Amino acid sequence: MNKKLKLGMIGGGNGAFIGAVHRLCARMDNKYEFVAGCLSSTPEKAAKSAEEIGLDPSRSYPDFKTMAEKESLREDGIDVVSIVTPNHMHAEPAIEFLKKNIHVICDKPMTSTMEDAHKLFETVSQSKAHFFLTHNYSGYPVVREMRSLIKIGELGKIRTVKGSYLQGWLGSKEEETGENKQAEWRTDPKRSGVAGAVGDIGSHTMHLIEFITGEKLISVAADLTTFVDGRKLEDDASIMIRMSNKVKGNLSISQVATGEENNFRLSIYGDKGALHWSQENPNYATFSKLEKPNQIITRGGSIKQDGSFSHERVPAGHPEGYLEAFAQIYSDAADVIQNKENKTDLIKILPNVNDGLHIMKFIKATVDSNNNNSAWTDLSTIK
Amino acid sequence: MNKKLKLGMIGGGNGAFIGAVHRLCARMDNKYEFVAGCLSSTPEKAAKSAEEIGLDPSRSYPDFKTMAEKESLREDGIDVVSIVTPNHMHAEPAIEFLKKNIHVICDKPMTSTMEDAHKLFETVSQSKAHFFLTHNYSGYPVVREMRSLIKIGELGKIRTVKGSYLQGWLGSKEEETGENKQAEWRTDPKRSGVAGAVGDIGSHTMHLIEFITGEKLISVAADLTTFVDGRKLEDDASIMIRMSNKVKGNLSISQVATGEENNFRLSIYGDKGALHWSQENPNYATFSKLEKPNQIITRGGSIKQDGSFSHERVPAGHPEGYLEAFAQIYSDAADVIQNKENKTDLIKILPNVNDGLHIMKFIKATVDSNNNNSAWTDLSTIK
Amino acid sequence: MNKKLKLGMIGGGNGAFIGAVHRLCARMDNKYEFVAGCLSSTPEKAAKSAEEIGLDPSRSYPDFKTMAEKESLREDGIDVVSIVTPNHMHAEPAIEFLKKNIHVICDKPMTSTMEDAHKLFETVSQSKAHFFLTHNYSGYPVVREMRSLIKIGELGKIRTVKGSYLQGWLGSKEEETGENKQAEWRTDPKRSGVAGAVGDIGSHTMHLIEFITGEKLISVAADLTTFVDGRKLEDDASIMIRMSNKVKGNLSISQVATGEENNFRLSIYGDKGALHWSQENPNYATFSKLEKPNQIITRGGSIKQDGSFSHERVPAGHPEGYLEAFAQIYSDAADVIQNKENKTDLIKILPNVNDGLHIMKFIKATVDSNNNNSAWTDLSTIK
Amino acid sequence: MNKKLKLGMIGGGNGAFIGAVHRLCARMDNKYEFVAGCLSSTPEKAAKSAEEIGLDPSRSYPDFKTMAEKESLREDGIDVVSIVTPNHMHAEPAIEFLKKNIHVICDKPMTSTMEDAHKLFETVSQSKAHFFLTHNYSGYPVVREMRSLIKIGELGKIRTVKGSYLQGWLGSKEEETGENKQAEWRTDPKRSGVAGAVGDIGSHTMHLIEFITGEKLISVAADLTTFVDGRKLEDDASIMIRMSNKVKGNLSISQVATGEENNFRLSIYGDKGALHWSQENPNYATFSKLEKPNQIITRGGSIKQDGSFSHERVPAGHPEGYLEAFAQIYSDAADVIQNKENKTDLIKILPNVNDGLHIMKFIKATVDSNNNNSAWTDLSTIK
Repeated sequence: MNKKLKLGMIGGGNGAFIGAVHRLCARMDNKYEFVAGCLSSTPEKAAKSAEEIGLDPSRSYPDFKTMAEKESLREDGIDVVSIVTPNHMHAEPAIEFLKKNIHVICDKPMTSTMEDAHKLFETVSQSKAHFFLTHNYSGYPVVREMRSLIKIGELGKIRTVKGSYLQGWLGSKEEETGENKQAEWRTDPKRSGVAGAVGDIGSHTMHLIEFITGEKLISVAADLTTFVDGRKLEDDASIMIRMSNKVKGNLSISQVATGEENNFRLSIYGDKGALHWSQENPNYATFSKLEKPNQIITRGGSIKQDGSFSHERVPAGHPEGYLEAFAQIYSDAADVIQNKENKTDLIKILPNVNDGLHIMKFIKATVDSNNNNSAWTDLSTIK
Repeated sequence: MNKKLKLGMIGGGNGAFIGAVHRLCARMDNKYEFVAGCLSSTPEKAAKSAEEIGLDPSRSYPDFKTMAEKESLREDGIDVVSIVTPNHMHAEPAIEFLKKNIHVICDKPMTSTMEDAHKLFETVSQSKAHFFLTHNYSGYPVVREMRSLIKIGELGKIRTVKGSYLQGWLGSKEEETGENKQAEWRTDPKRSGVAGAVGDIGSHTMHLIEFITGEKLISVAADLTTFVDGRKLEDDASIMIRMSNKVKGNLSISQVATGEENNFRLSIYGDKGALHWSQENPNYATFSKLEKPNQIITRGGSIKQDGSFSHERVPAGHPEGYLEAFAQIYSDAADVIQNKENKTDLIKILPNVNDGLHIMKFIKATVDSNNNNSAWTDLSTIK
Repeated sequence: MNKKLKLGMIGGGNGAFIGAVHRLCARMDNKYEFVAGCLSSTPEKAAKSAEEIGLDPSRSYPDFKTMAEKESLREDGIDVVSIVTPNHMHAEPAIEFLKKNIHVICDKPMTSTMEDAHKLFETVSQSKAHFFLTHNYSGYPVVREMRSLIKIGELGKIRTVKGSYLQGWLGSKEEETGENKQAEWRTDPKRSGVAGAVGDIGSHTMHLIEFITGEKLISVAADLTTFVDGRKLEDDASIMIRMSNKVKGNLSISQVATGEENNFRLSIYGDKGALHWSQENPNYATFSKLEKPNQIITRGGSIKQDGSFSHERVPAGHPEGYLEAFAQIYSDAADVIQNKENKTDLIKILPNVNDGLHIMKFIKATVDSNNNNSAWTDLSTIK
Repeated sequence: MNKKLKLGMIGGGNGAFIGAVHRLCARMDNKYEFVAGCLSSTPEKAAKSAEEIGLDPSRSYPDFKTMAEKESLREDGIDVVSIVTPNHMHAEPAIEFLKKNIHVICDKPMTSTMEDAHKLFETVSQSKAHFFLTHNYSGYPVVREMRSLIKIGELGKIRTVKGSYLQGWLGSKEEETGENKQAEWRTDPKRSGVAGAVGDIGSHTMHLIEFITGEKLISVAADLTTFVDGRKLEDDASIMIRMSNKVKGNLSISQVATGEENNFRLSIYGDKGALHWSQENPNYATFSKLEKPNQIITRGGSIKQDGSFSHERVPAGHPEGYLEAFAQIYSDAADVIQNKENKTDLIKILPNVNDGLHIMKFIKATVDSNNNNSAWTDLSTIK
């Protein structure tokens, strides 16, 4: 029997969708106990949110500095803090807690600016605490299975990757309705960063491609478009990519794709095989082997690899979803923090500060390419 | 902020798949706290299981009678008990806790014998406590949405229902491998009851048809088969059904359907429309309206009805699954127990002792029909 | 280079959907030349239809007897006649042409009465000419591939078959609109026979199950329903079946399934594997092998068996459909008639008079069972 | 009753897949009679092929010039010639027949060089004969339906298009096996032109996008790759596009996509709706309307528009495929040639010499962009 980790949260107050998701996911596998928070941007709102979700008032803090200070002094202080604020409010609290050697689980993308990204990177390298990013799609069992199949060579040499992440929720000017906080900050360069759709969902797409293939992005050529008049950041992108080992790829990213909910798909083609996955029906993947009929892989099905970390909570045929995949990141982070047996391997697949900095460079390079008439832009040029 | 309900459990110890599912689902929406249990059939195993899952040893009980006795005397005693044992061990503990006015959440089918079913039915009718059955598929948001669409007349008069629940896990003699406890008790008439596949998954199929359509089963004609040599209960069934309001139906139930994982599908045809749902991709349904193109309904999508109790935790496009649907039963039960605002409506859709007794009659009538050369057998003849 | 067979047609005149289909399919593989016909029920209509489709007026006949007589006397007379009239008008012309040793390709079901079926059977057995039935779904390449896979043992011992054939076009009283000739005769016992939906599409379902599995139907228990008020024949059926070698099955047949177009699906489960096929996307099948991921078979794909007669006209990925499958029956019939090399094998898979009589017994047994309160009814009892 | 058009063919001899497809498709709707040909590249092969497919030896010609000469002098000479040779052999014969005022149906892309394209364009503009290109995917009923829906404004303003055409048949060096003539000429710049995959299937993709949306391509930025060592033309391409009315798009084209057969998909997003189509299941499209559930359009289903020229030969639910769509081009071309009533409208949707020249520019611009480090390249710069 494990002792549960004590968890705090920055952001995620009253009405914040993603805060509730984090708390549910932390709770799912019974490895965390939520005990402290600075849930909103003002002390009043923070206190109100704390009350609503039943947080002990003495551990509801008016600001993250006070929280880091006080919690680090308590004997029963938090082990881990989740940062679920808009992008521009990731770096400062993360740095504060890392300095107190409190582990951090942070939403993606890592920061809103390259400057913050580098600062945070430095801090992590000097802290004893762990830093994890919630690139939650890497928690899907079938996704991890795909990574494992590629690692053992089932696809041969990877040639090309086709990725698309298509949503329709920003098809009109949601940020001006006054009813959509998500839309407001995500389309605001001050809070979101230099990119809109690319920062929000392009970042997931690029991370997952690297996660599954094991190849790293080298260069991008991008065409970004803002289809909704007056919007400040792009809401649609075509991105051609070049990766290590001569892997090529093509990405379609959109938040104005009418009728799409969360249509995130990847196809990965190697010279001996291919894999296809779609987030909206995530318990299955299609696995092609040269000269063989396509096979349907299922979560926990007969093809499951040892060491894939493709964890399933219920047997194949009983669908798991987004929350389970998200919870997997929390579960694995807990195992690493508590020095479980599989720690060494888990730490390699959990999204970390290197991924965070790298994906920040991807976002910046994409914007730079677009500003340079879609010229190929190497990530190595991004500072 | 709610106070959490205190939860106990009968069964669900060491290695029991369904016990862990119940605990995870109880935890998901933060409405229960698991505090007591009699987790296994012997005091030693029970204690060991309690230790493994971190239960306070003073609230790990050697038998359910002691547990009911002791917990009912504590000021902080359990509010609710989950019964997750094999079928033959449902009635006795349920009755014991109900007599102490402790609420019961019980696995399906309700009991292993009609006699037990009647006894339990009597007890419930005399207890102040609630009794709920985990016909968990009725917790899927899209399933509840379908029920709601039918209720408001979108399908017109229901004509015919085609249901199939196909699994392959009992395709060979799993009950003799010594490694499959599920297979052992589910194929054992003493623990399972008069039916195998029909009791296990036919019961879900029939419940869900009634749940969605609002019509009640009247009569069955069945052909049961035991395909695996030496097995004691049927592993495959064809069942023709007749329901209230002249609704007809046809069910295919199998646990020897090679290659199937948990393929549970329903199609419901009315004179103005139809609905189709498949459990393995449960966030979608197909909705046909006369002379219109088929529509794809999504969980939480644009067609969502008020009062459908089709609760979603994450937006459409972010798939939810089996665990979330199962958790919904727990969540709704908590709301009823705690007299939440929507209690009156929720109590109508939660599977209860009437459903339990009715489904027991369905199982018995199916077996009787088969024993009588597939003759039509009315549920009214089942005692 | 082949000489083309000379083809005549009975029925299929002005506005008759299926006549045009037959002619297109006969033309597709360039093995027939359409030269003579008695296209409608009256001499005037027949002449008008002939003119419209460009038939030589001297070979447009007022009645089938004259046609059989005259064509059999011409040196360049027809080799083959297609009979595409309503069911009650199959036997007489077929018998007439068979007596002249002209080959017959006849629509299904074979006749409208058992009496006619026996008469036709006798005639075929005494004629030198071939008699083929257009159970056209057996012409699909993937269907033939499935048959071949089962024949070589890939499914092991067949256990159970789940079939459904669901249409919605008779959901209201189409036969009284005055605009739907198909609906008129298919719901008229005098022209259609003792059954409606079962005769029309149940017959296809049962034939295809036997074609693919190689097992023969022994007994049925059926529940037939007429959902549309005042209709004279059933429009919906549930049918439980027992076949040779202890194979069981369950069929759902409906022509009032709102929203369904031509949803014909089969799942065949053996102890070592399973196969699934759906007519509306007919270029694919799912092939399950025990303990292996499901595979997707494609028309002409890598799994193709020698001797499956699974003919494809364009490579996999270029979909073929209903017309190609239908044309395959014509193409194979031509090869048999012209004594091509593969004649001996083809003759075994083409639907013939034995199938015709057998399926007539299936239809009658289904109706008898329904009239006898769904009692199991052996085909051996049907005279 | 129509008189049939007399059809000749250049290429398509012994073993040529596409020649047989053309002849079958010309035959399907009974509007052509195949009477003359120059079927192979040498007189001997041509004669042999003619014999095999039963062509009158007196109308089997040793070269296309003789054929054009002789046929134009016959009273019963051909009305139309189909040109089904490799790309480099399109222009010369086409020009020869057009000069004799014989109509031409030509395979795509129109030529192998821009020079030939311009010559042919000139010739067509001076000929009384029609010139059609077999961009056969525009013959699919559902594709035409999509075009029609967009034309009447159902999608609002088109924003972005995502297209992919993925095949795997050139995944290894097929052109050196000695057994794949298709692979040989398609990877040979002398016969194919400046591009490989882009010329072969990228051309279809780009044509269909313009056909459906009504927007014209303006500029491309492309990254072409030759994954198979030693191959002379690209076998994979990512192409970003900009079209009229600020429509953007992204294309993924590959012939080394392991496991893909003929996976051609389009998604078209407007500000009021979206449409999705996949060639491998071509009888369906998904139609999204803002704030409404997605709808499934079927061939010939309830949404069918007047004037869509979405012709179906069999009712919805009876799948049609590649051959029927291809035949539609032949059928419509015949109607235009024979001055049928709908000629004026049909001529607008049939792929013609303008499309041919435009698509040639697309191919060239794509190659130019790639050679210029993926710089945006306007079609207006292509000469």
